[in-house]
Amino acid sequence: MKLLEGLKRDLSEIERAIEGQLSASVPLAKEVSRYIIRSGGKRLRPLLFVLSARLCGHCNDKEVKLSPIFEYIHVASLLHDDIIDKARLRRGRPSANVIWGNTIPILAGDFLYSTALSLATSSGNLKLVSILSEATKDLAQGEILEIEKTGKLDLTEEEYFEVISKKTARLIAAACRLGAVLAHAPFEKEEALNHYGYNIGLAFQIMDDILDYIGSEKEFGKPTGKDLKEGKITLPLIYTLKRCSREERKEIVTLFRRRTKKDIGRIIERVKAYGGLDYAKNRARKLVDKGKTALVVFPEGPIKDTLKEMAEFIIKRKH
Amino acid sequence: MKLLEGLKRDLSEIERAIEGQLSASVPLAKEVSRYIIRSGGKRLRPLLFVLSARLCGHCNDKEVKLSPIFEYIHVASLLHDDIIDKARLRRGRPSANVIWGNTIPILAGDFLYSTALSLATSSGNLKLVSILSEATKDLAQGEILEIEKTGKLDLTEEEYFEVISKKTARLIAAACRLGAVLAHAPFEKEEALNHYGYNIGLAFQIMDDILDYIGSEKEFGKPTGKDLKEGKITLPLIYTLKRCSREERKEIVTLFRRRTKKDIGRIIERVKAYGGLDYAKNRARKLVDKGKTALVVFPEGPIKDTLKEMAEFIIKRKH
Repeated sequence: MKLLEGLKRDLSEIERAIEGQLSASVPLAKEVSRYIIRSGGKRLRPLLFVLSARLCGHCNDKEVKLSPIFEYIHVASLLHDDIIDKARLRRGRPSANVIWGNTIPILAGDFLYSTALSLATSSGNLKLVSILSEATKDLAQGEILEIEKTGKLDLTEEEYFEVISKKTARLIAAACRLGAVLAHAPFEKEEALNHYGYNIGLAFQIMDDILDYIGSEKEFGKPTGKDLKEGKITLPLIYTLKRCSREERKEIVTLFRRRTKKDIGRIIERVKAYGGLDYAKNRARKLVDKGKTALVVFPEGPIKDTLKEMAEFIIKRKH
Repeated sequence: MKLLEGLKRDLSEIERAIEGQLSASVPLAKEVSRYIIRSGGKRLRPLLFVLSARLCGHCNDKEVKLSPIFEYIHVASLLHDDIIDKARLRRGRPSANVIWGNTIPILAGDFLYSTALSLATSSGNLKLVSILSEATKDLAQGEILEIEKTGKLDLTEEEYFEVISKKTARLIAAACRLGAVLAHAPFEKEEALNHYGYNIGLAFQIMDDILDYIGSEKEFGKPTGKDLKEGKITLPLIYTLKRCSREERKEIVTLFRRRTKKDIGRIIERVKAYGGLDYAKNRARKLVDKGKTALVVFPEGPIKDTLKEMAEFIIKRKH
């Protein structure tokens, strides 16, 4: 990809920092952490943090050194998610719980969360730590809310947005906002980056939920309809249920209650037929535009362009 | 108990703070957190923090307001432990995983960890947050190490001490040390309280491990030999295995591999016969004395006396 090509040097520096800042006195803690870290990922959050800091004029190795904070929190949540979802695969490789069982990955997640906070304190910036711990609190609450709402077909769009705001958007917003905080940027810029991150964060999760309807196991290491199978109701289905007739709704409810492979396939068909995917994609598109617009307070330039491209990347990505 | 009688007012203030500082936007996050918090506990860590701060001359409501930090971290680790141990009971009540399954308590633990860090940042003291996040890192690593060593009868005393140092003593040490940090006490006092906390923390865990050999389910909500049943090797058994003859060792190994209820009973008998409990208790006694001695840098007075009594309480407690 052209965008990632241009960010190659930054990404490889971030990669080095992610490995380098991980220190453990218990080797197994490091081993499991490394395993989940090395399972790949786009390093979206660290990259957003680095670019945001630079957009605010911060430019030394500190933003790179601190950038793993956001990856550690992200992968810690993945370790816990995979236990919760009883996942067998993570990005095409056996998930950590398949290799080490459920116990060690719970603790490795805890280790990564505290490693992130510990690294954050090394910034010497208390505001940064405070915003970060609030974002982590939201992350856990968003996931609790998501589980609570699992299987509930009366989930409203508003409730859906509360879930994805907490479980995804807040951390992405924090990564962007904290770039400004690190750079001691004025409040206006901090707010702008917060808005940018929050809106593209929502879009990111909506796209992730759309990909559950169109992804393929072979290409992306994640089977189609996996979330649906687990009873997770996302925007495309919420829209469809709101639009369809009473009879059609009844049919979907029956399919959803049973949730065999065939039933899942049928639900996906219905959602596509009703334009649920187009609707969700349109919502994501608007959020991305909103995010880009928030950057208006910054002068034009290559970093701002990259952040705009990253916003576009979020809705164009195929995995 | 006389000691706790004298601390009644402090304890009720701490109790109020523990409830009061718990804020959540997702009601279920609060509900699960409250459940584990209300399952009781001695509030040892918050109390040590409050007393340590006051010993260093700090005396306003800030130490009470911040004291829940240590209880939140402690109960977060209990939530995760109970999932790991597949516990059915916690202090005589159904454990959280029995009520909500495994998924919600993992996330409620994450929520409590970040609530603790978030409360810590409200102190405005970055050093406090930094020491705390390091202690939390150690806690997770200690538990990982413990699981790694489970079932391994060749566990050495040194390895045992590494486990209990990380999983228990470091957080208790941090609670005491951070009292001094909050009070901006000189380094000598900070160090003294750290030593005090660390040594009584080790003693606390040794006593906990001894209680597994003598406790009773009815009295303490925890069955005798529970740790042993799970394959956890602690100081009394390590000592016994080192002291007994080759034949006796072989017998214990066989009993341990099988671990039926009867086998566990027999291992407990052997440990008692070999003085494993006396040995462990003696080690705990010496650590408590060492902890008390560390307080020598402080002038005599009622707070110092209370901290000494608390150290004694640790080895006299029956649950």
